[in-house]
Amino acid sequence: MTKRDLLSMEDLTRSDVELILDTAESFLPIMHRDIKKVPTLRGRTIVNFFYEASTRTSTSFDLAAKRLSADTIALKKSGSSVEKGESLKDTVLTLTAYSPDIIVIRHPSVGACRLVARQTTASVINAGDGKYQHPTQCLLDLFTLRQTFGRSLEGMRIALVGDIMHSRVARSNIQGFQMMGMQVTVIGPPTLIPRGIESLGVRVEHDLSTLASHDVIYVLRLQRERMAEGANFVSTLREYAAVWGIGKNRLRRGQKVMHPGPINRGVELTAQVADDPDTLILQQVESGLATRMAILYRTIVGYSDAAGEETS
Amino acid sequence: MTKRDLLSMEDLTRSDVELILDTAESFLPIMHRDIKKVPTLRGRTIVNFFYEASTRTSTSFDLAAKRLSADTIALKKSGSSVEKGESLKDTVLTLTAYSPDIIVIRHPSVGACRLVARQTTASVINAGDGKYQHPTQCLLDLFTLRQTFGRSLEGMRIALVGDIMHSRVARSNIQGFQMMGMQVTVIGPPTLIPRGIESLGVRVEHDLSTLASHDVIYVLRLQRERMAEGANFVSTLREYAAVWGIGKNRLRRGQKVMHPGPINRGVELTAQVADDPDTLILQQVESGLATRMAILYRTIVGYSDAAGEETS
Amino acid sequence: MTKRDLLSMEDLTRSDVELILDTAESFLPIMHRDIKKVPTLRGRTIVNFFYEASTRTSTSFDLAAKRLSADTIALKKSGSSVEKGESLKDTVLTLTAYSPDIIVIRHPSVGACRLVARQTTASVINAGDGKYQHPTQCLLDLFTLRQTFGRSLEGMRIALVGDIMHSRVARSNIQGFQMMGMQVTVIGPPTLIPRGIESLGVRVEHDLSTLASHDVIYVLRLQRERMAEGANFVSTLREYAAVWGIGKNRLRRGQKVMHPGPINRGVELTAQVADDPDTLILQQVESGLATRMAILYRTIVGYSDAAGEETS
Repeated sequence: MTKRDLLSMEDLTRSDVELILDTAESFLPIMHRDIKKVPTLRGRTIVNFFYEASTRTSTSFDLAAKRLSADTIALKKSGSSVEKGESLKDTVLTLTAYSPDIIVIRHPSVGACRLVARQTTASVINAGDGKYQHPTQCLLDLFTLRQTFGRSLEGMRIALVGDIMHSRVARSNIQGFQMMGMQVTVIGPPTLIPRGIESLGVRVEHDLSTLASHDVIYVLRLQRERMAEGANFVSTLREYAAVWGIGKNRLRRGQKVMHPGPINRGVELTAQVADDPDTLILQQVESGLATRMAILYRTIVGYSDAAGEETS
Repeated sequence: MTKRDLLSMEDLTRSDVELILDTAESFLPIMHRDIKKVPTLRGRTIVNFFYEASTRTSTSFDLAAKRLSADTIALKKSGSSVEKGESLKDTVLTLTAYSPDIIVIRHPSVGACRLVARQTTASVINAGDGKYQHPTQCLLDLFTLRQTFGRSLEGMRIALVGDIMHSRVARSNIQGFQMMGMQVTVIGPPTLIPRGIESLGVRVEHDLSTLASHDVIYVLRLQRERMAEGANFVSTLREYAAVWGIGKNRLRRGQKVMHPGPINRGVELTAQVADDPDTLILQQVESGLATRMAILYRTIVGYSDAAGEETS
Repeated sequence: MTKRDLLSMEDLTRSDVELILDTAESFLPIMHRDIKKVPTLRGRTIVNFFYEASTRTSTSFDLAAKRLSADTIALKKSGSSVEKGESLKDTVLTLTAYSPDIIVIRHPSVGACRLVARQTTASVINAGDGKYQHPTQCLLDLFTLRQTFGRSLEGMRIALVGDIMHSRVARSNIQGFQMMGMQVTVIGPPTLIPRGIESLGVRVEHDLSTLASHDVIYVLRLQRERMAEGANFVSTLREYAAVWGIGKNRLRRGQKVMHPGPINRGVELTAQVADDPDTLILQQVESGLATRMAILYRTIVGYSDAAGEETS
């Protein structure tokens, strides 16, 4: 890999991305065996340090590490010295003294994981920092797209719909989709789209009229917990659902829908869409596990070919 | 096994029960070795999903899985996407995308685990749902009885004493005890015994006068945390202890006492009874570990004989 | 080892201490390999039971156990039956029924771990009880000193500075330092030094004037969370920092500084001292892992020589 850490999609070249996706593909069959485990990272130590609630990302990294036979230690904000007022820097220096191979961190502050990376000899993987980046989500989404549409995503059209403003997924995915040659449209109410986002090379639309012209609709979670009180980004959930909620009636037959989860059923998408076979949400979760195995593996082992050992 | 899931004692035939108890017996010696571990379920994934506080049940399942060399991931309500408002259905669909072999679930709502079982390809084990069922408790109690009284429990008399109303243990155990040919009496104040419980084939009594005629006294926990405020099921703890608390003076010499734990010392039983050698509470805990190893094993491997591999 | 449990430094003879430190030294290289793991305690069960918040100690024990290939189960006060009102005794009896090899316990009450040791067949390791003892901290500090100054600490002078009153580390370390032949001075404001501490054979000083005459300055954490409200042990943090905070200007060139962590930067020591290469805080953390591996190993295996197996 080009860099030791994975803090942002900008840390990766296109060939890094392709290496990770190829590795994820080689790990996928492990998940469907009886013995869902390989000895690849036996004796390695991975710290999962989550300052924010998470089901998908934290269990996905934990299980990815276990399926590679690594040892994991989990740290949460509550129950740790962070509660005693210890600084992030000192917590990271302490963890570093255990010689972990990787620190996976989710933190509410933009840039926290970059600070962590400067303090530690371990490789750092950003599992979501504030509103800024969520690169492993982007990689698992690219893996899901590749499994669905084939290896080349060149020229595909994807629409990101909804709350772009508060979404770290949007930020990472715009970079990742463009890196693979996809054309990105962001669609949502003006209050939920950051000003000047056109400068990233995306098209901006404020209604759903062109939805059908996209190959994939990527619906974003309405981040109610990130909206400052009284900010009035949306009037009511009901109105939001009526105007922006994605139902079957708004989709072409066979049109694929993605969502990073957790979903708000009946808000940004209908229950019918959530459960539709053309919706890739659960493939994204499964892809997440294989992709994170690949990220952990490639972060530690780098470019060396391990095709023989990794699946035996 | 007859069914893929263990949601209720009704899912099991008598021969299923006997297979599980025989398997538990074969696992028991592992607990007294230096190396308390067998490779039987290596590479299998077991999700422990606990919506309610638990020491016994959650650590028992976790350790049972580890002693079979399975990988476990633990999910609690707090710190998970459930806090972000994700539905139980979506959480389970997400977990299912990781291809776990078993989901162990404890949930405050009756029927929650049946809902989970409908959404997942994993086997589901009910570790307690609301006031309804706690089948693994019943199985470990049957195992404890068999270790104490021998393989046939036919014709034995057992009294369930105390808070029958709020007890999922009572519900499962009445079914399990009867399945093995035991005669069941439920004893407690009218406010803590559900109306019409006679239709299950149990005798109902409202005083402790027949206690001595039973082979085993199964004391139930006074479920203070389940009693709706102001419901007035008991007047005071002190009065409850005076009238219903089981002390040595109420027991025949050598009479066995059981309790599902955690106990309220000095409430439903005295400290002296809690610590008496005829009280089987700690044997129940030890049985719990062996029985849950057997349940995990039989859920995954089914009827195939594994006598050779499982203890080697 | 002389005793089965490690509850207090008084449980250890000098030769026990030296055995543990020698073992820790043999484990140290494992931490710098790719495969940071030995099979020494495979199949052993270690319970980590933490009633109080901790990063260093709980992760250090957890990782120490994993690097020895033991299985661990973690129990916290929240989410356990302790919340349902179960007594410490009953929780320990329950855990004991799982036949663990070791119970590691941190508890806010002095003497809690001695009570635990009386109830269990497992070996008990005190990971900090109230203000009384923290023997594994003392052992890791001795290991850090030995790695820095060589095998003999005889005649060395060490100053414990700050909040002696609320520090279990101070209590254990005075005993351990003296056992190894070191001379101990305690330095702090009269309100934070227990009366009559001279009877332990330490010198007491109420200003920093002799600081330079010590080989090592051991700064104690200002235990804000242990100070009863309104007790007025210190006037303000700012004043405490001005009078008692250790800055570079107060230290001899090359003088070593230790601290048990977590540190309050800018209170009991300056950020500059915290980050100085002569400050041994991170060596203490690393030593903690090796020392706890040694403690777990020696607690289970005792005196038998295992030089061959333990690092192969």
